[in-house]
Amino acid sequence: MSESSAPLVVFVLNGPNLNLLGTREPHLYGSQTLDDVEALCRQKGGQYGFEVRCHQSNHEGDLVGWIHDAGQLHRDGRLAGVVLNAAAYTHTSVALLDAIKGTGIALIELHISNVHAREQFRHHSYIASAAKAVMCGFGVLGYGLAIDAIAQWQSH
Amino acid sequence: MSESSAPLVVFVLNGPNLNLLGTREPHLYGSQTLDDVEALCRQKGGQYGFEVRCHQSNHEGDLVGWIHDAGQLHRDGRLAGVVLNAAAYTHTSVALLDAIKGTGIALIELHISNVHAREQFRHHSYIASAAKAVMCGFGVLGYGLAIDAIAQWQSH
Amino acid sequence: MSESSAPLVVFVLNGPNLNLLGTREPHLYGSQTLDDVEALCRQKGGQYGFEVRCHQSNHEGDLVGWIHDAGQLHRDGRLAGVVLNAAAYTHTSVALLDAIKGTGIALIELHISNVHAREQFRHHSYIASAAKAVMCGFGVLGYGLAIDAIAQWQSH
Amino acid sequence: MSESSAPLVVFVLNGPNLNLLGTREPHLYGSQTLDDVEALCRQKGGQYGFEVRCHQSNHEGDLVGWIHDAGQLHRDGRLAGVVLNAAAYTHTSVALLDAIKGTGIALIELHISNVHAREQFRHHSYIASAAKAVMCGFGVLGYGLAIDAIAQWQSH
Amino acid sequence: MSESSAPLVVFVLNGPNLNLLGTREPHLYGSQTLDDVEALCRQKGGQYGFEVRCHQSNHEGDLVGWIHDAGQLHRDGRLAGVVLNAAAYTHTSVALLDAIKGTGIALIELHISNVHAREQFRHHSYIASAAKAVMCGFGVLGYGLAIDAIAQWQSH
Amino acid sequence: MSESSAPLVVFVLNGPNLNLLGTREPHLYGSQTLDDVEALCRQKGGQYGFEVRCHQSNHEGDLVGWIHDAGQLHRDGRLAGVVLNAAAYTHTSVALLDAIKGTGIALIELHISNVHAREQFRHHSYIASAAKAVMCGFGVLGYGLAIDAIAQWQSH
Amino acid sequence: MSESSAPLVVFVLNGPNLNLLGTREPHLYGSQTLDDVEALCRQKGGQYGFEVRCHQSNHEGDLVGWIHDAGQLHRDGRLAGVVLNAAAYTHTSVALLDAIKGTGIALIELHISNVHAREQFRHHSYIASAAKAVMCGFGVLGYGLAIDAIAQWQSH
Amino acid sequence: MSESSAPLVVFVLNGPNLNLLGTREPHLYGSQTLDDVEALCRQKGGQYGFEVRCHQSNHEGDLVGWIHDAGQLHRDGRLAGVVLNAAAYTHTSVALLDAIKGTGIALIELHISNVHAREQFRHHSYIASAAKAVMCGFGVLGYGLAIDAIAQWQSH
Amino acid sequence: MSESSAPLVVFVLNGPNLNLLGTREPHLYGSQTLDDVEALCRQKGGQYGFEVRCHQSNHEGDLVGWIHDAGQLHRDGRLAGVVLNAAAYTHTSVALLDAIKGTGIALIELHISNVHAREQFRHHSYIASAAKAVMCGFGVLGYGLAIDAIAQWQSH
Amino acid sequence: MSESSAPLVVFVLNGPNLNLLGTREPHLYGSQTLDDVEALCRQKGGQYGFEVRCHQSNHEGDLVGWIHDAGQLHRDGRLAGVVLNAAAYTHTSVALLDAIKGTGIALIELHISNVHAREQFRHHSYIASAAKAVMCGFGVLGYGLAIDAIAQWQSH
Amino acid sequence: MSESSAPLVVFVLNGPNLNLLGTREPHLYGSQTLDDVEALCRQKGGQYGFEVRCHQSNHEGDLVGWIHDAGQLHRDGRLAGVVLNAAAYTHTSVALLDAIKGTGIALIELHISNVHAREQFRHHSYIASAAKAVMCGFGVLGYGLAIDAIAQWQSH
Amino acid sequence: MSESSAPLVVFVLNGPNLNLLGTREPHLYGSQTLDDVEALCRQKGGQYGFEVRCHQSNHEGDLVGWIHDAGQLHRDGRLAGVVLNAAAYTHTSVALLDAIKGTGIALIELHISNVHAREQFRHHSYIASAAKAVMCGFGVLGYGLAIDAIAQWQSH
Repeated sequence: MSESSAPLVVFVLNGPNLNLLGTREPHLYGSQTLDDVEALCRQKGGQYGFEVRCHQSNHEGDLVGWIHDAGQLHRDGRLAGVVLNAAAYTHTSVALLDAIKGTGIALIELHISNVHAREQFRHHSYIASAAKAVMCGFGVLGYGLAIDAIAQWQSH
Repeated sequence: MSESSAPLVVFVLNGPNLNLLGTREPHLYGSQTLDDVEALCRQKGGQYGFEVRCHQSNHEGDLVGWIHDAGQLHRDGRLAGVVLNAAAYTHTSVALLDAIKGTGIALIELHISNVHAREQFRHHSYIASAAKAVMCGFGVLGYGLAIDAIAQWQSH
Repeated sequence: MSESSAPLVVFVLNGPNLNLLGTREPHLYGSQTLDDVEALCRQKGGQYGFEVRCHQSNHEGDLVGWIHDAGQLHRDGRLAGVVLNAAAYTHTSVALLDAIKGTGIALIELHISNVHAREQFRHHSYIASAAKAVMCGFGVLGYGLAIDAIAQWQSH
Repeated sequence: MSESSAPLVVFVLNGPNLNLLGTREPHLYGSQTLDDVEALCRQKGGQYGFEVRCHQSNHEGDLVGWIHDAGQLHRDGRLAGVVLNAAAYTHTSVALLDAIKGTGIALIELHISNVHAREQFRHHSYIASAAKAVMCGFGVLGYGLAIDAIAQWQSH
Repeated sequence: MSESSAPLVVFVLNGPNLNLLGTREPHLYGSQTLDDVEALCRQKGGQYGFEVRCHQSNHEGDLVGWIHDAGQLHRDGRLAGVVLNAAAYTHTSVALLDAIKGTGIALIELHISNVHAREQFRHHSYIASAAKAVMCGFGVLGYGLAIDAIAQWQSH
Repeated sequence: MSESSAPLVVFVLNGPNLNLLGTREPHLYGSQTLDDVEALCRQKGGQYGFEVRCHQSNHEGDLVGWIHDAGQLHRDGRLAGVVLNAAAYTHTSVALLDAIKGTGIALIELHISNVHAREQFRHHSYIASAAKAVMCGFGVLGYGLAIDAIAQWQSH
Repeated sequence: MSESSAPLVVFVLNGPNLNLLGTREPHLYGSQTLDDVEALCRQKGGQYGFEVRCHQSNHEGDLVGWIHDAGQLHRDGRLAGVVLNAAAYTHTSVALLDAIKGTGIALIELHISNVHAREQFRHHSYIASAAKAVMCGFGVLGYGLAIDAIAQWQSH
Repeated sequence: MSESSAPLVVFVLNGPNLNLLGTREPHLYGSQTLDDVEALCRQKGGQYGFEVRCHQSNHEGDLVGWIHDAGQLHRDGRLAGVVLNAAAYTHTSVALLDAIKGTGIALIELHISNVHAREQFRHHSYIASAAKAVMCGFGVLGYGLAIDAIAQWQSH
Repeated sequence: MSESSAPLVVFVLNGPNLNLLGTREPHLYGSQTLDDVEALCRQKGGQYGFEVRCHQSNHEGDLVGWIHDAGQLHRDGRLAGVVLNAAAYTHTSVALLDAIKGTGIALIELHISNVHAREQFRHHSYIASAAKAVMCGFGVLGYGLAIDAIAQWQSH
Repeated sequence: MSESSAPLVVFVLNGPNLNLLGTREPHLYGSQTLDDVEALCRQKGGQYGFEVRCHQSNHEGDLVGWIHDAGQLHRDGRLAGVVLNAAAYTHTSVALLDAIKGTGIALIELHISNVHAREQFRHHSYIASAAKAVMCGFGVLGYGLAIDAIAQWQSH
Repeated sequence: MSESSAPLVVFVLNGPNLNLLGTREPHLYGSQTLDDVEALCRQKGGQYGFEVRCHQSNHEGDLVGWIHDAGQLHRDGRLAGVVLNAAAYTHTSVALLDAIKGTGIALIELHISNVHAREQFRHHSYIASAAKAVMCGFGVLGYGLAIDAIAQWQSH
Repeated sequence: MSESSAPLVVFVLNGPNLNLLGTREPHLYGSQTLDDVEALCRQKGGQYGFEVRCHQSNHEGDLVGWIHDAGQLHRDGRLAGVVLNAAAYTHTSVALLDAIKGTGIALIELHISNVHAREQFRHHSYIASAAKAVMCGFGVLGYGLAIDAIAQWQSH
């Protein structure tokens, strides 16, 4: 289904406040920075021959737009998958839910910390019902596992 | 109240993911694109002598800003009405509610699909209490009916 | 599917207290009477060649029965659509919901006032999930718009 | 405001199952029949020169209709007041609420038993917010007290 | 207590929309009509020497009235039991609850479909707490089982 | 049961803020003062030969204590009844509920305004389930009606 | 689908505390013992040529296991149906729900008493949505009716 | 902790629709414009030697970004405090909550009107739990009081 | 309206447990005693020429009474404002709400700690809807800011 | 920690309506009076060398004050423990909760009846979370057990 | 009622995870092991001449079975009482509730820690309404107090 | 801390109905059997030198016991981690929560399907708050990813 020579693409999308990684509540999020995480993703994706595109924004609308971009790649047969850490928007954004459902992409919802051990309002995710899989509490290592999963799905 | 020669203005505002119209869940939203809808609105508005201004954004703040623009025209006596399909923000945005209340404009809340036949969280609208009228389930034809309603209100 | 010469039928059904139109809380419902509304509907339907049948009752069971009548016409290929202002029964009647679902007719739920700007219990409609479309807040002009919509659906 | 010679009218309206009075759960409702109650009301009303009209029905729509009748008398300046024991419809009927609000009559909501000492769902009344006054637990004597109250309001 | 020669009576009461049986959502309700069901009941009741009285109405008040009729037979020692499929009124009618409690009859609440596998609001029954027994999901065969149960109770 | 020559006693108990009567929100409570109300009660009670004891306090504990006093009279066979306007404590005081249940007295819960037409939290009364009867919305005339009811209960 | 000579099997499964039948709250459950009930089931099943297998356990996991056994028979075409009185686990066991859904068997949920006339928490059943039919309040006679129903379903 | 010569900074951040100040619902917000408020803040801050930075945006993401900027100054020892009127985002934004918690800044949540006297949904603030202090209902004078508070905290 | 020579009065009212200030949970309330706070208030009020009256009680009824006293001064044109720290009664007292509404005084609700960062039940205030302004989390300095606010309101 | 010669003190505090013990609902509370209970406590405490101080009040504020007294003894090292039967205030008093938390005393919450077998609102205790231990349903013997527990804690 | 020479029996039943006592969260449960607790119970029971039977299981069904065993002893007049620490099953087991109600035994519900100071879901007990008494927060000493209570009940 | 030569252990625990894997709702759970899954786990664990112990049970108590076994290994320094698919017990078992908290083990909660896209009651997990990480929707491949995660945690 994919176009001949172009590599499959993995999107790694990070939402609000994740630009603070490394300085923000390190007991919850660890001490690695967003640059570290994106490097880890590119390195891991490279092992599978994926092109990894990383974006971060504090704007809900930007995340919606990148989901649309992934949807376009999906229709072109060039998308391997999307790893989305929507952070706070996980709990408040119907727009992200609609974007995922509207594009039909295979998306992994990821959280660095175990959101179920935190405040009640973090236990509900608007986007989980449209995600293919969900993971949380694995720390920044989770990003790598998510890309492993995408690769394994490709090979099944 | 309106200025002498300038035509009255109708705003047609579309919110997040509506740029996907035609490709997104066609069983819910039909196969017409946003361009089709905006052309329909301009054609319908033209019949009544309205200037129709169409905008779409995935950013809540952009929609708030266009409501403010409509509010300015309203204070200048140049606004006929606003048709707002706030999509996902319908259910989450207090900011849009405040914008509508703050400007006092006559606004029709519109949804293409019948939101009451969908998920529970789509049954609640933050903005409906500040709207003049609400309609849903008429498909893209609803935009035309909304402009008809604005025209009929003008003539009463 | 429709029988050769007989015109298609539009039902306009009004529920409890709508016989008070014109005297009841005019700031909410306007000053036109039910007779005015039914005349408007017949005139508007006539433009499209519809036979318009108007009924009002304070009895839930009567409304259920008229839905059944419409269902029979629908099975005979003679129904264009139904406009239902169920008034108070909107919020309490499972029987109307079942009637609509049981007949499979295309029905527009209509309210003269914007129910979303009123008491909390008026925000929930039992019948909306079985309706094809819903509109409120357009005043008595809404009846005409609903018949316009039925006509447009016929021609698509 | 009242017309010259015609007496002021008091409506005494009883809802579903009250035709069973005297046989139904006498520990809650006592052993007097509906005929006894209506005789009591006519006799009490006669003391004040009222014409007392008594109706009972198991149909919600009938009660709505009698409220409309009272509303017409009210507009004609001939209504002293309405005593309504809506029984089960107290807790489920938005139609009665709308009828009372739509006519603007002075209505006393009455229950024979103390509804607050019974099931939870009997603690909520849809109509109380539109009533002028509410009383419960006085047994059938309550009807007489209600007519006393109407008379006292007339003389203030 | 029963009168000498007159047979015991079984009431079979069907509520709103059940006159549509056979045409209404056959995947839920099957293809047999109400006439079929009533014939089945009369045939089954005849086996036990019961007089079977069948009624259907879309009016809540009619059902209340028939419960009262059954109550009168009960006081006369002539009632075997009542089978009530209150359909939509199951979920909204306090009046039916009060009628059953007020008459003290032995009543079987019956639903053709398994209401617990449907919408949330169909899981609550106002009348179940006053019923002697409840059954659902047996299809139209359930009516026969209910009459079997009444017969078995008589013989214990 | 009552002692030979001593008259039966009626308690009229008023709770917090009722000392403001006449100055406090007169659109809700009217312009008569607490002194007026207590005089009205003594005059009305005198007609039936009752000794009327009036108390007001802003302290929940004082009201509890007066209920205990009434309970002592009740055990001595000297209590005709209690009229309690617990005002704000109606909605928050379990202590008053326990006092009424603990003494077993016949108590009428009274509110001057129609509490059901006000804020949601005023719709719930802790004490109503232990009261014999409840009335609201009759204005200060309600106190007189309550004493009438006590007198009528005595004579039945 | 069924194997040649082996009879079809009916499972009768009883949950926690039903081993106390006859001694436990006889006003609710009657005076027959579990042995009586199982004998009744075997006798009734024998009339239809069924092999009836009866089990009781206070362990949720045992009930799950027997459902699995029934599921195996179902896949082998040898299951007529299952009658399950899950007792307390009705209200708390998602595991039973999953077992029923996972095996796809035709199961009748049965309660001896009318659970809807008891505590609120007994009104909710986790398993009802996966059952084919539900019955309660028929006393121990209900087991016989359930086997009648299974036999009737077989012959349709 | 602060750097030698540079003044301490106070951020004054205003959220959606506050650019309408002066024209928007003046009975709630008064007639002063946002320019007036920002001038007031700069003048008040100047009295204490603060550099006052004022920003307004209708975009949630912009507010998040400015909180991050304040966090950077805080880590540099140059932040006196933040005054945040998040307006509508107060009630919907988990992203702002996370930004405040992630930066650890001393922030005063401010509302011009008394939000507790308005709609129910305005009574809940996502950000209040991470704020150091909260104030509302002081009108635009509140901004000045907030800066007074920051100054007093500095001097303790 | 104010009497010629007498100074305007500010009430500073403290509720239950605030007599423990300085010893009670100092991480929440600081180490200053109630005497310190009242001295601070008198000193601050003196700067504006106010007479400051300080009261503390653990009795809800006492606080209600002092609000009434303030109401009397308000009617006499001698009240500048009231600062109320109702402590625990904030969350449970309808009587205080009624007192404030009944007197129509300008009242600032104050809490020393940030109640929104504490238990859920402290997030709701019965009195906030009747207050003019609300503040919390400013420590004991908040009392001074509140008197500043009262002074600034006087001069506008 | 305790002062040389003075005995350790146990407070036994009883709340509203407990002065009625012996006359109030004896099926719930038994026939012993408050005097009996206090004698029992003094006798039991004497066995351990405790000084037992007993108080009862219908005023929430009095109970708060006695907790403060106990807190002072605690700070002086002279408190063994507190037994508190707050009765109705258990369910409504945040002030008592704050008093207990503010003093840090070791307190046993006690109820004579099993509150969990009574009305729903008696299942929630505001003070339990600040108590060291909770007991109910032991009748008046519970007071003795509570003092036993205090003595055992002292000796560990 | 008890058999001549056999001693009365006390059951001490411990539920899931209590076999971990001493190693599990010692700040909540202390450092004594289950063996220690059972020894304490046997020693305490011996003082009163009771035979003490101790059981622990992680299986809900086992606990149900032991309650049945106790019920059999109760019917034989040989049961003094049951001490049940159902641990986690307290909050989820309707089966235990039914077992206790079905046997009619006198049971003390016991928790080592103060469950009301822990997570919200630990505040609700399914079994408390069927228990005779409830205690929590006394540490392992509570087991001894419970046996004291059983002995005192025997001697009354 | 680990013993010299013995390998670290990984527990793979599967709860109720997972013995049906491969036959149960394959659209949700895939077609691989439990044997396949356990083989996959052993093979994956072997890559990292882990001893993998696999257990499945339909009994809640068995799962609690295996958690205890893991806890013992953890105290002995021999546990690498636990992968728990508690299936239905995820949503109902406080006992599992307590077991995990009581042992302090590092546990990954795993679900084969995306539970967030299924029934509402599957969105809540009692055990998630005590888990280290949670994953769902990865199909049976998830087990392998979980063991990868455990291995990566070991090496950090």
